[in-house]
Amino acid sequence: MEEFIQSAEYTKFIIDNLWILVAAVLVLMMHLGFATVESGFTQSKNAVNVIYKNVFILCTGILIYALLGFQLMYPGDFNGFLGFGGFGIGVDPDDPVNMFTPAYGLDMTIYTDFIFQAMFAATAATIVSGCVTGRIKLPAFMIFSAILVAFSYPITGSWHWGGGWLSEMGFYDFAGSTLVHAVGGIAGLACVILLGPRTGKYRDGKVFAIHGHNIPLATVGVFLLWVGWFGFNGGSVLSADPVNVSYVFVTTALAACAGALGSMITTQLTMKSLDAPMALNGILAGLVGITAGADTVSILSAVAIGFIAGIMVVFAILMFDRLRIDDPVGAISVHGVCGIWGTLAVGIFSAEHSFLTQLIGVSAISAFTFVFSFAVFGIIKATMGVRVSPEIESDGLDIAEHGNQAYPDFSPVKTSELGAF
Amino acid sequence: MEEFIQSAEYTKFIIDNLWILVAAVLVLMMHLGFATVESGFTQSKNAVNVIYKNVFILCTGILIYALLGFQLMYPGDFNGFLGFGGFGIGVDPDDPVNMFTPAYGLDMTIYTDFIFQAMFAATAATIVSGCVTGRIKLPAFMIFSAILVAFSYPITGSWHWGGGWLSEMGFYDFAGSTLVHAVGGIAGLACVILLGPRTGKYRDGKVFAIHGHNIPLATVGVFLLWVGWFGFNGGSVLSADPVNVSYVFVTTALAACAGALGSMITTQLTMKSLDAPMALNGILAGLVGITAGADTVSILSAVAIGFIAGIMVVFAILMFDRLRIDDPVGAISVHGVCGIWGTLAVGIFSAEHSFLTQLIGVSAISAFTFVFSFAVFGIIKATMGVRVSPEIESDGLDIAEHGNQAYPDFSPVKTSELGAF
Amino acid sequence: MEEFIQSAEYTKFIIDNLWILVAAVLVLMMHLGFATVESGFTQSKNAVNVIYKNVFILCTGILIYALLGFQLMYPGDFNGFLGFGGFGIGVDPDDPVNMFTPAYGLDMTIYTDFIFQAMFAATAATIVSGCVTGRIKLPAFMIFSAILVAFSYPITGSWHWGGGWLSEMGFYDFAGSTLVHAVGGIAGLACVILLGPRTGKYRDGKVFAIHGHNIPLATVGVFLLWVGWFGFNGGSVLSADPVNVSYVFVTTALAACAGALGSMITTQLTMKSLDAPMALNGILAGLVGITAGADTVSILSAVAIGFIAGIMVVFAILMFDRLRIDDPVGAISVHGVCGIWGTLAVGIFSAEHSFLTQLIGVSAISAFTFVFSFAVFGIIKATMGVRVSPEIESDGLDIAEHGNQAYPDFSPVKTSELGAF
Repeated sequence: MEEFIQSAEYTKFIIDNLWILVAAVLVLMMHLGFATVESGFTQSKNAVNVIYKNVFILCTGILIYALLGFQLMYPGDFNGFLGFGGFGIGVDPDDPVNMFTPAYGLDMTIYTDFIFQAMFAATAATIVSGCVTGRIKLPAFMIFSAILVAFSYPITGSWHWGGGWLSEMGFYDFAGSTLVHAVGGIAGLACVILLGPRTGKYRDGKVFAIHGHNIPLATVGVFLLWVGWFGFNGGSVLSADPVNVSYVFVTTALAACAGALGSMITTQLTMKSLDAPMALNGILAGLVGITAGADTVSILSAVAIGFIAGIMVVFAILMFDRLRIDDPVGAISVHGVCGIWGTLAVGIFSAEHSFLTQLIGVSAISAFTFVFSFAVFGIIKATMGVRVSPEIESDGLDIAEHGNQAYPDFSPVKTSELGAF
Repeated sequence: MEEFIQSAEYTKFIIDNLWILVAAVLVLMMHLGFATVESGFTQSKNAVNVIYKNVFILCTGILIYALLGFQLMYPGDFNGFLGFGGFGIGVDPDDPVNMFTPAYGLDMTIYTDFIFQAMFAATAATIVSGCVTGRIKLPAFMIFSAILVAFSYPITGSWHWGGGWLSEMGFYDFAGSTLVHAVGGIAGLACVILLGPRTGKYRDGKVFAIHGHNIPLATVGVFLLWVGWFGFNGGSVLSADPVNVSYVFVTTALAACAGALGSMITTQLTMKSLDAPMALNGILAGLVGITAGADTVSILSAVAIGFIAGIMVVFAILMFDRLRIDDPVGAISVHGVCGIWGTLAVGIFSAEHSFLTQLIGVSAISAFTFVFSFAVFGIIKATMGVRVSPEIESDGLDIAEHGNQAYPDFSPVKTSELGAF
Repeated sequence: MEEFIQSAEYTKFIIDNLWILVAAVLVLMMHLGFATVESGFTQSKNAVNVIYKNVFILCTGILIYALLGFQLMYPGDFNGFLGFGGFGIGVDPDDPVNMFTPAYGLDMTIYTDFIFQAMFAATAATIVSGCVTGRIKLPAFMIFSAILVAFSYPITGSWHWGGGWLSEMGFYDFAGSTLVHAVGGIAGLACVILLGPRTGKYRDGKVFAIHGHNIPLATVGVFLLWVGWFGFNGGSVLSADPVNVSYVFVTTALAACAGALGSMITTQLTMKSLDAPMALNGILAGLVGITAGADTVSILSAVAIGFIAGIMVVFAILMFDRLRIDDPVGAISVHGVCGIWGTLAVGIFSAEHSFLTQLIGVSAISAFTFVFSFAVFGIIKATMGVRVSPEIESDGLDIAEHGNQAYPDFSPVKTSELGAF
């Protein structure tokens, strides 16, 4: 180690390591983004519940990832399908050389590698939190999300980023359109199917809008997600390489912008309105879409991928409502649909990657995640139940599950007192 | 390129490049600052409209800047008044050397240069968004702001930062007190004159306060603007030079603090109250004021510039109300008046710069921007109209233009139902 | 200086300096965190007042720190108890070598050193702001907090970080569990004792809950505090050393997570509820707890320290209510109790440090801060008074002290009109 520290490469190591730490801070900011966008897009009677779920799974998820997820996702040499490097972060304090991630030759310490990955880990579960909001039993969410972060996310992650069979095959998902976002969206889809829609959402063959309660709060969330995404994508370069990181910044930003425009135009053409939540979701759609190929597609392709994602998210949200898949914040569309799109788009827009391989990768990870989630959430449903009572749903989960109100001063109307919702 | 990457200077290049990327992230955060401060300082019935406008122009602005603004602002060799380097970012992917911005010798890749400048580009239009809020037709804003970002901002920008006639002359505007902030304020002034005040703001020879709806939201915005300003000013050093960047941090922070105090004291002395929105505007006033000279004035001068800006913003807001210039969020005062003040202050407090040259620069850019904005917005007014109907203004633009409510759960009172506002 | 700039170490200097500047930005974000968490956890009728106080003391505090605090805290060679290096930041512009902090050999410019320390300085006073909210006279807070930042914080700070008697003794407080957080909590305790509880909080031998008004706003604050804490702790390494900074990131994050879990479990076991504000305070408790030993305790110890802090904060909040110490936002518990715990924990979990020395250090700083605060606030109480009238308290401080309402559109109910609170 002493020798390395005196070498010329060590300076580059310091810079690379610093950038990944800063990127980890930015990814933590995304979790505030998730908490606020999901809370803002739900009713005020459930706003605290969303926040609580996200705080729970972020904190539990990082601890679980430290305990076993990190070495399940990066097991070292393994059979390509399932491996486990052991409990803990995997650093031997008596062997300081080990701190410099020699196992996989990254330009960062193992602590940096861990914290950056740990900040990613709870993302998938946080996406689920948005999908199931407004009617899920809190303990059911807690158990499901912890299991998802502990096993499902690291296992499918190991297939590609851990050096498993998908990476052997040439599958490419730069920063996680599929490995993170689609996984969250697909897991959410499985849960929503088992959970059913919120009462009153689909009545008499019609779809009734249940508006979120705080668009400025959701706006804060979307912008913070964008801000954090520069760490999510930019940090996934795994170094501070000037050309690569700056290129990823450009594709990420332009796709976000094109996503917003795609969504704005689509909403105006199809609904004759300039709906703000849809525009905000368009930014996220563009960001999710570009995540798989941010370092590999051309700038024009990045604009196209984002723009198409912005269009897709509008139709996806409408489609899931037709299918009576009730996703209050649109997370299945934003993260699931656009995550799959972004991964496939790498096979379309990048000459170096095969569409078929991308399709196989997306399908395998989606299938595993769906089956895993359906099974685990199904068992929870069969044993302890997953859905709150109609009274609790009507009154809101904040009071029933937490004894809190999001805004006590503003006397939010209890819907049960009105006999409506 | 290979040779450069193996040179000793390359390490410094990596660090400089990384800092500008981080600074770009911070400037993006300023756009969340603008969205929340402007939304918070308007009525809740128009809160979504403000956000939508800002999202639209941020996203459209970045795309337009990529398409033509970047090379209009930095055209390379040109006549000093108007030049155009061509469409796109100007990087030739087949010539990787080009990525290292050899044309103007910056210590960053051309992608980094672009993304940092692109984050600045929509700022001026976002400032206009605040000035015209509450009564402007959405399409009128969209068209005007896109034209402003596409042509006016890059052209006046080229005069100084692009190496044009003002820089030849010795004019100095470090990070854009004039080039960014005054441009936004002056463009907003032109629009407000053509648009007229909100109904009921000036009645019977009196000024009626129309309060913003959410001071905590505006507070989030002001702090995020301050946070982001370290990237705006600190990144404008265009390198990670330790003395220069840290000096800029100190002058920026102290001017912000002095601006707040200047505003607090002035408000107490003149209005006998400790008005919170004024204190928040004082922070912004100090930041706008120091932006032109953050790297060149002394620390004591920075405090003086910020303090005076904090005093000026209070009187400017009162003055514009006397003149029946209705600027709901005070953006003309904060960005226009304090932007001009900050630029002139460089000529007063820095021995290296001439007051006369500063005055010429400010005047030329302000005049161009005012005439350009007045003409473009005037044409829009004459053709498609710029003002919503009295009914829409009374009900709020959120429902009429977007079909959204900012806070559906809290049943904001429709003013048309009350016959008052 | 020229020679140094051409040396090989200069590159490392640039990187270290840059990281501390980024860390300073993150610590500024903590002040937005304090403003929003304290505002969210108070009633809406006092929400603006909290924000105003925090803006005031942040801005005033930084200016005072520039004027005299910085050289009172870092006086150079001194007697170990009290020293003063002179007014101003202490840089001689005619001696550029001086910019490179040669006096204490830090890898940063004196401007960087100053701005990082200045961002810390107002923290203690901001903590007090939360404790005294809802009934303190604004001028009383302004005077007290300015004196606290000007004298008390830098003097106790000089004892350890300035190289004074506590550092001589071997006392260790890495980033300020005691020097920053406990100082704020203890000062708040002294003020609350002199100020008394809010009217109606303790009646008929019972404790009545006075709910905060905006949990999503408080959530924004807690997350931003966590985000900023990576700068607070990570920057306290005072370099970008890869192993040290990344290790501090890991201990900081895991302690925050464990704190949340500790609080969640405790709340569920003792109150049979999953209270969201308590979970949020658990995150802060973990962060405050790990701050003293983030670079020196083991990873498992960090989890234990955070978890115990999360448990302690729940019982501390309950205990202070039993003692009729009315701390509306729980800041004495979070920052005072957990700050003391974290400092003592270094003596328990780190073999290199002595529990006794830690106890002496905590006791000395706490005693000084309490006596100083009690005396100063006592004098203010005896002369100008510290408490608003019952009418103002009932109506809320926002209207009485500022003429503002936090949310004018939502017509917050004036409690005096209802004859209740």
